[in-house]
Formats: sequence, structure tokens, C-alpha cells
Amino acid sequence: MNVVCLDLEGVLVPEIWIAFAEATEIEGLKRTTRDEPDYDKLMGYRLKLLREHGYKLADIQAVIEKMDPMPGAKAFLDELRAMTQVIIISDTFSQFAKPLMAKLGWPTIFCNELIVAEDGEVTGFQMRCEETKLTTVRALHEAGLETIASGDSYNDVQMILHSKAGFFFRTTDALKQEYPDVPAYEEYAELLEAIKCAL
Amino acid sequence: MNVVCLDLEGVLVPEIWIAFAEATEIEGLKRTTRDEPDYDKLMGYRLKLLREHGYKLADIQAVIEKMDPMPGAKAFLDELRAMTQVIIISDTFSQFAKPLMAKLGWPTIFCNELIVAEDGEVTGFQMRCEETKLTTVRALHEAGLETIASGDSYNDVQMILHSKAGFFFRTTDALKQEYPDVPAYEEYAELLEAIKCAL
Repeated sequence: MNVVCLDLEGVLVPEIWIAFAEATEIEGLKRTTRDEPDYDKLMGYRLKLLREHGYKLADIQAVIEKMDPMPGAKAFLDELRAMTQVIIISDTFSQFAKPLMAKLGWPTIFCNELIVAEDGEVTGFQMRCEETKLTTVRALHEAGLETIASGDSYNDVQMILHSKAGFFFRTTDALKQEYPDVPAYEEYAELLEAIKCAL
Repeated sequence: MNVVCLDLEGVLVPEIWIAFAEATEIEGLKRTTRDEPDYDKLMGYRLKLLREHGYKLADIQAVIEKMDPMPGAKAFLDELRAMTQVIIISDTFSQFAKPLMAKLGWPTIFCNELIVAEDGEVTGFQMRCEETKLTTVRALHEAGLETIASGDSYNDVQMILHSKAGFFFRTTDALKQEYPDVPAYEEYAELLEAIKCAL
């Protein structure tokens, strides 16, 4: 039995932190996992900027509420879910994901949790496990499932390499050059066709 | 992060084999995991009866196409999916599940595969792994997820006992007596409330 493991941001929805950076005009929040492979470092930097500018969880959630999935993402996901099983494996946080999952028809998502103070300040974050995406794909294998993975960023590489098939989607030139053996697609129709062939 | 692991048949949809037994009037196909804890034995017996009566996969699928989720199941599942993550963990087969998943709004399901000959005869079955439900729940734990489980049958007991909370739903008196410490519910509202408290 197959499970397609999809990254969220950059694949199905725009980058949440970039949307928030644009809304708040904080240039430093535009760095993502596509630029910075060390997620702890990236998140530490983001939380420092939030603190400095006095933004709280509710401010980010207000921006997310207005975000929409990327054009064609819902139709792609609907077709995929009618064909096989899908789990979104994301390093985003459950406090961010909910309104986007509603717009995508409530696919299953495994992500992480923000630690939030009583006054709504984001004080930290709790990753589900070490190397979240790779660990999750390996756990699925232990449950007798075969995985097919797709993502756009550094933190997707290991789940892509450890799945029976894996694809970049709208990734950077740097990642394409570093992993020339991983097929890289720009359109949902191409990704869907590649997944169909791998099933 | 929490994942609610739900059994399918008897919890969200009627028992598929019982529906087929009624449609075909084959009394022996009314045995389920509620009666027979040994799933290999039960499936061997079912496949033998199919062969004897000349029924093929398409005959079972035709009955499943006409089945509906249990009254209230879709609303229960919709509310649950808006609140937390859900995976249906079932010992049914992917060849059976699809029309029912469509009617439930495409929740994620982990199940097994039938082995089907070219002429459509069901010649065997392939379980995903040993002790499917317990193994899956343990794999989810390894991915840093906490589980809450519910089911009605013998094959649900281990995933219920190994989750941080677990509940029987519309189970037998025998199971209630054997596991008096597992709360047993009859209504979706009760199960939803118990899950909410465990989140």
C-alpha cells in the first residue's frame, strides 16, 4: 500500500513566513528552508524577529487566514486523494496549518507545535521528533507502507531520497544541481503523472 | 501532536462482509473480527466461501458501491478532522475502501491489499505488516505523534491499549467484559467528547 508524502509550503500553499514578512515588511522573515538548511537556526532567527517587532501568534494567524492554496493545488490534491493515500509532512506548526487544511479539504497533516505564552507571544517550538520528515517516512515503512515523496526544500531531501520514488516540485536551482538524479517538476500535472507511474 | 486512529467497519461504516453476506444470503460470511479474533483464519474461511459460490471481486465491489457510512459517521468525522488529525486504520482492503472513503470525504486510510487473479477471483490477501493496528500505532509514536484509538473488535484491542487514550465504540458484551477498563461508547457524541478530553 502506498502513501504519498507531500511537503506543504511551496508545494500546496505559499510560504507562510514570506506572506507574513510581506504583510509586516520585515525583510528578515523572508528566509525559508529553501535558503537555510538548519531549521533550528532558522526558527530561532524568526522568533527573535517576532519578539523584536512585538508580533504575537494571533498576528501571524490573521495573515494565514487570508492566504489561499496555490492555484491548482486543491484540484491536484483532490485527484491524488481519490487515487491513493496522502499525508502532508510539514515542518510548519499546527497553530498555523488549520485554516489552510480547511481550504484544502482537510487532508491529514503531520507537523510540529509552537510553544505560546499566555499573552500569545511565541516563545519556542517543539519538533515532533529528530529529522521529522525522514523519521516519519521511516515510521511509515515500518507500518508496511511504501512512500512516494515530494517537496521543494532542503528539509525534504531525505524523505525524497528514502522513498521508493521522490520528486522536487518548484525547487531552487541549487537543489536541482546538488541532486541531479531527483526529477524536478514545475506543474501539478507533471507531478501527478510521475506519482501515478510510481504507484 | 495527536493522531486519532479509528477502525472503519462497525465504527464509521457497516461491516462490509456482513453486507455482502446479506446480499448473497451466504450465512457463513456473517462472521467478523467481532466473532473471530484470528484474522488469517477468518479471511481464509471467507475466501473459501467466495470460491465455493463463484463470487469475484467485482461482485463484492458492487455491494460496497451501494453501502453508506453509518448515520452520523460523516458529521462525526468532519468535526474530528477539523479538530485534530485522523487516520483510519483498518484490516479491510484497498479494493474495498475507495467508494466508502469517497462518501466520508477522503480521510486517510491505512489498510491491506487483496490478491486478485486476472479473471477477478480473489486468490489471497496481503497484510501490510504483522499485527497491523498495533504496529501502525507504534510507528506513529516513533514519528513523535501521540495516538488516541477507537474500534469495536478484537483486532482493535492492542491499538486501544497502546494509545494514550482508547475507547470501544459499539462493541460486543464479550469485549466489554474482557476489558472493563476501556470506556465503551454507543453514540458519536460521546466518543467525540471523550476524544476531545484526551487531546
